[in-house]
Amino acid sequence: MNAQKGISTKEIILKEAFKIASLFGLEALSIGELAKTVGMSKSGLFGHFNSKERLQIMVLDFAARDWIEKVISPALKKPRGIPRLEAMMENWISWSSTSLPGGCPFISAAIEYDDRPGPVRDHLLNLQNEMIGSFKRAAGLAIEEGQFESKLNLDGFAFELYSFMIGHHVYSRLLKNNTSEKMFMSSFKNLLSRSANSDKKV
Amino acid sequence: MNAQKGISTKEIILKEAFKIASLFGLEALSIGELAKTVGMSKSGLFGHFNSKERLQIMVLDFAARDWIEKVISPALKKPRGIPRLEAMMENWISWSSTSLPGGCPFISAAIEYDDRPGPVRDHLLNLQNEMIGSFKRAAGLAIEEGQFESKLNLDGFAFELYSFMIGHHVYSRLLKNNTSEKMFMSSFKNLLSRSANSDKKV
Repeated sequence: MNAQKGISTKEIILKEAFKIASLFGLEALSIGELAKTVGMSKSGLFGHFNSKERLQIMVLDFAARDWIEKVISPALKKPRGIPRLEAMMENWISWSSTSLPGGCPFISAAIEYDDRPGPVRDHLLNLQNEMIGSFKRAAGLAIEEGQFESKLNLDGFAFELYSFMIGHHVYSRLLKNNTSEKMFMSSFKNLLSRSANSDKKV
Repeated sequence: MNAQKGISTKEIILKEAFKIASLFGLEALSIGELAKTVGMSKSGLFGHFNSKERLQIMVLDFAARDWIEKVISPALKKPRGIPRLEAMMENWISWSSTSLPGGCPFISAAIEYDDRPGPVRDHLLNLQNEMIGSFKRAAGLAIEEGQFESKLNLDGFAFELYSFMIGHHVYSRLLKNNTSEKMFMSSFKNLLSRSANSDKKV
């Protein structure tokens, strides 16, 4: 009963911390401020996480679980290759624009931690490489399915896809450009068409 | 004489502040810490900038002047169109990888300020729109020169170029991917070739 309560309290705190990190970055997380937000004592909250660094790493893991649940898992139900890649991008747009107050938390963290060495940076780097790996695997399956050309450079494909995602984040959030999603989708579709098997190219 | 001294002291402080912001972001700038770094009293430094916000805006302007001087001005000496666009990207890579300890300061700031309303965000938004405008103008000249196709979507072109720049920033800095510059240049060249006037396409 207590363990159950412990888990759910932790989840509630992490959800709140995740919101703050999405808006203002992981560095802006403070155990003191977070305690006030969730109505707990600072020492009570400290008991759950031991350090700010541990809290930051757990927030990253919370975000990664949310990403898998809302972006990757539903896409895996789609046919391999292009339909799955399309579902991943549609799910990501919906995830980062509707359920997160500050947009994609990994993009913010990727910039925030590039020059802050330590366990938070290392953990983030692994999570980002996993995400890029999932783009490469999905594109690799599109080659296997004969949708993409066999000589497609998977690293280059993932680089462009990730670049457009970050571009969309900045255009829609900082620049408040209301054609950002349309430009992102157009660049993404163009990338798919450039990668297509030449037998099937229009 | 004093005014002269005032200007140069201010420049020295801004240069130091610019380095800190490049590494850790504009929010991490503190008048107290900066005073220690440049060996001045906090009140002496405060006399130059009046507020943290004013300091942040002046650091952005300092960065913008540096960008114009090292990236844009040398490119304007190149022929209009593609040679000028190529020079801009080569100069940007050299600027952000060799003279800045924390990489392109505008990319970091663009993520840092997307959810921090206020004068710093407004100022940054104007500077970023100016930069995107300079990409669109350079691409527009490439249309005039007959190098790019006349129906090229200039907004879409600038979106992709800016996206690859941010992608390169994250790949090279957070992910320490040593093929990042090669992938960036390859994506950039592919964008130029996709934009080319079909009469001249290979």
